[in-house]
Formats: sequence, structure tokens, C-alpha cells
Amino acid sequence: MVGKSQIKLIKSLRQKKYRDLNSMFVAEGRKCVGELLKSSLDCVGVYTDTPEDHKDVNAALSVVTPQQMKQMSGLKTPAGLLGVFRIPESSLASRTGITLALDDVRDPGNLGTIIRLSDWFGIEQIVCSESTVDCYNQKVVQATMGSLTRVNMIYTDLENYLRSDTRPVLIADMNGESVYKSQWPEELILVMGNEANGISPEIRAQASGVISIPQFGVQQETESLNVATATAIILSEFRRNHPG
Amino acid sequence: MVGKSQIKLIKSLRQKKYRDLNSMFVAEGRKCVGELLKSSLDCVGVYTDTPEDHKDVNAALSVVTPQQMKQMSGLKTPAGLLGVFRIPESSLASRTGITLALDDVRDPGNLGTIIRLSDWFGIEQIVCSESTVDCYNQKVVQATMGSLTRVNMIYTDLENYLRSDTRPVLIADMNGESVYKSQWPEELILVMGNEANGISPEIRAQASGVISIPQFGVQQETESLNVATATAIILSEFRRNHPG
Repeated sequence: MVGKSQIKLIKSLRQKKYRDLNSMFVAEGRKCVGELLKSSLDCVGVYTDTPEDHKDVNAALSVVTPQQMKQMSGLKTPAGLLGVFRIPESSLASRTGITLALDDVRDPGNLGTIIRLSDWFGIEQIVCSESTVDCYNQKVVQATMGSLTRVNMIYTDLENYLRSDTRPVLIADMNGESVYKSQWPEELILVMGNEANGISPEIRAQASGVISIPQFGVQQETESLNVATATAIILSEFRRNHPG
Repeated sequence: MVGKSQIKLIKSLRQKKYRDLNSMFVAEGRKCVGELLKSSLDCVGVYTDTPEDHKDVNAALSVVTPQQMKQMSGLKTPAGLLGVFRIPESSLASRTGITLALDDVRDPGNLGTIIRLSDWFGIEQIVCSESTVDCYNQKVVQATMGSLTRVNMIYTDLENYLRSDTRPVLIADMNGESVYKSQWPEELILVMGNEANGISPEIRAQASGVISIPQFGVQQETESLNVATATAIILSEFRRNHPG
């Protein structure tokens, strides 16, 4: 039996305040919940309103009514399977190799895509400014398709972090050196900026270099690439040079 | 004065059937409407419920009430400015240079991102399978940020198109040659596939080569990159080799 207070708790996890307070977050759907169950994360509970469809899920299932699932779910159309997981303690940031840093990335879909990309390209940690969207926001969780557990996410004062690191800091921006011509150091911090405003002045002041993705074609009117797309191209260029 | 029948027409344009029937599509917001007004597209009408905010828009504005705007708008929160434009006749497909082909790409956000990317990388045409999401779907229009008018969009029987072209056909898939090692021909057709199923067997049969984005890192569990992200990386690699 799943009680009202449990449903209320799960529903509250849509807000960062309550995720922080309870150290829990929600994932939905077979793929996403399944990936998290395979990981080292602590699972608090898994709920379903369609137990027949989820017999093969490797967890004890709490059966709820479709009405209860609707209340718990953050999706327009609940996916039939909802997992609650413990937010892991964030490890200390490593100071070697390549680190991706995000300066105020706000869109959950963009952060989700960037986490998935980092996993693909073997980037082990992402250091985010405090203003970057929370990685346990459900839209981020869903967009990462499970790769969230394979990338170490750290939220901190980004300016201080950059200031106290000895690696070169490359920022992605307009009018920098072409990504295709860059001499990529093997160890570096790559900073991607906010969707509308790019890199903030405080972070810009910490940069040792600026890299840009050249624009081709005649019209040259596309304002800029989306931050997730730009991250894809830059991480790909880094790995082409340093397969690791 | 804007009448009920006009509002009904605009509302109907959310469906492909009525876009095709009327050869019209809708764009919303200053940025998107503004870019389309600057293009060679025929503008059918521009509507606003906040005329004071849009005095500088280069078009005759029809003033509507907020209630009318709410009915016309396809957005949860209407953007205050809505334009109706004539769908241009699609030009004949060119058979030279690089052509991007899409085999059943279904997500409007992905198509929008791919159009924006193509504009950035100077790809002049995209040939889409009939099953690919309509590029005048409002979510696509909004995601292209105006670049829709700078890329020639062609919907056709993709298998026939590939069969009747002499250029090499490269498909993006798992287990192909690394994008970083490919000898890129200057003229080619690059095919990207469906979000869930990749390239269909009929299209695969037309391929002269398969290219892949190598996966890095230890865990190797990320299933695949998102199609828009993969397109970004591959187009970037093509342009690095052939700046055009």
C-alpha cells in the first residue's frame, strides 16, 4: 500500500528545494529507471500501475492505481514505471585531464544532452556554476537516458574553481581561434556558457584562450549554435586530437 | 478587425493537412517572425495583442485581443507576435556538392536543430523522406530560429532519390568507419536516420559507405548519440576537411 504522504513526498521532488531536503530524485520509464537500477545508486522505491508490463524489472515493485501514478508522475503521460533514487554525495572535483565546466546553462534538455555527450566522449566530470539547472531536475534526468550516473556532477562557485586550478581554461565563444586549428592541451577546462548570454564577464576573466566553431556558407546570419550542439562539436574535436 | 474565420484558419495551420491545403504556416515571437520578414517569403499577415511592444516590426500589424491571440497561438504562453507566411514552392534538388538526407527523423526539435546546423555549415539543401516530420510544423519553425528560409527543404521518396543520384551515399550508423579517419569525398549524400531505429533497410541498401562517431571512455554504455548531436559532429568533420 502506498499512502498519501508517500505520494506527496514524491510529488514534492519536482522542486529542487525538496530534492535537496530529502536527497532524492525521480526517474520515469523502463529505460531510464532500468539504467539507474543497474548503477551504484541507492534505490528508495519503484512504483508501477501496470505490474504485468514490468515483471522483468530488477526491483521490488510497489503497485499503485493509475490515479496515484498520475499524481506522482511529472510526465504528461505517465510511463507506468517510476523510480525514486537517493542523490549521491558529489565527489571532490578531480584536477587532471579534461573537465567540462558549465557557466549558467539553464535549459534542462541542453544539460541532459551535454551529460549524455560527456559520457559518450569519456568526460568524467562536469563542474557547474550554482546557477546552472539542477541535474536531478526530472527533465534533465529523462534526457540523460541513464548516463547521469556515469558522469560526476559538481555544483560550485565556478569562478573560484577556475581560479584555483592550474590547467588552461578555454572558453567557447564567438571570434576565438578555430576549433579545427587549435593546439589542444591534453589537460584543460573547457567552459560553455549560457544559452542567451554566453560566458559571463567574471568567468571570461579567468580564460586563457577562446575557441570558436567557424561558420560556413554565404549568408552568415545564423546567430549561434545551440550550446549542446556546440559542446558536441568541441568535445569531438578534443577527442580527435586526444583519444585518451 | 480580425474575424472568427481568420482565427479558425490560423488555428487550423497547426495541422499539416491544413498547412498543405492553404500553403501557409505560422511563426511566433519577435526573433522568429522578424527573421522570416527579412527573408524572401511572402507574408500573409502579422498579428499582435501588444502593439506598443512591436512598433519597430517591419510589417503592417493586425491588432487582436489577448483572448484572440490565445486562440491563434500554438504556444502555451503566446509570444505577443504571430506571423502567417506562404509556404514556398520547393525547388528541384541539386545534384552537386554535399546534400544532407533524413530518413524518417520524427522529432520536431531534432529537425529544427538540424536545419539550423545545416545553415551554419553552409549545407544548402536537405532531402527528407516523406515520413520525416514536416518542416513547417510550428515546433520545427520555432527551433530553426529563422534559418528555415536559408536551407532548401525537399520532401520526396528518399530511396528513389538516392538511387537516381551518382554521388556516394554515406550513412551514419554504428560499426562504420570512424568519422575522424574517413576520406571525405567533396560531393556526397550524407544520410541520418530515425531516432529509435536508425537507417531503414531500403535506404541502407543504397549506401556506399557507413560512418560512425567513435565512443570513448571506459563504460561504453551510452546507447547512441541523439541524431541532431550526431549530425553536428559529422557536418563539422566534413567542413573541417572541405571548408567549401
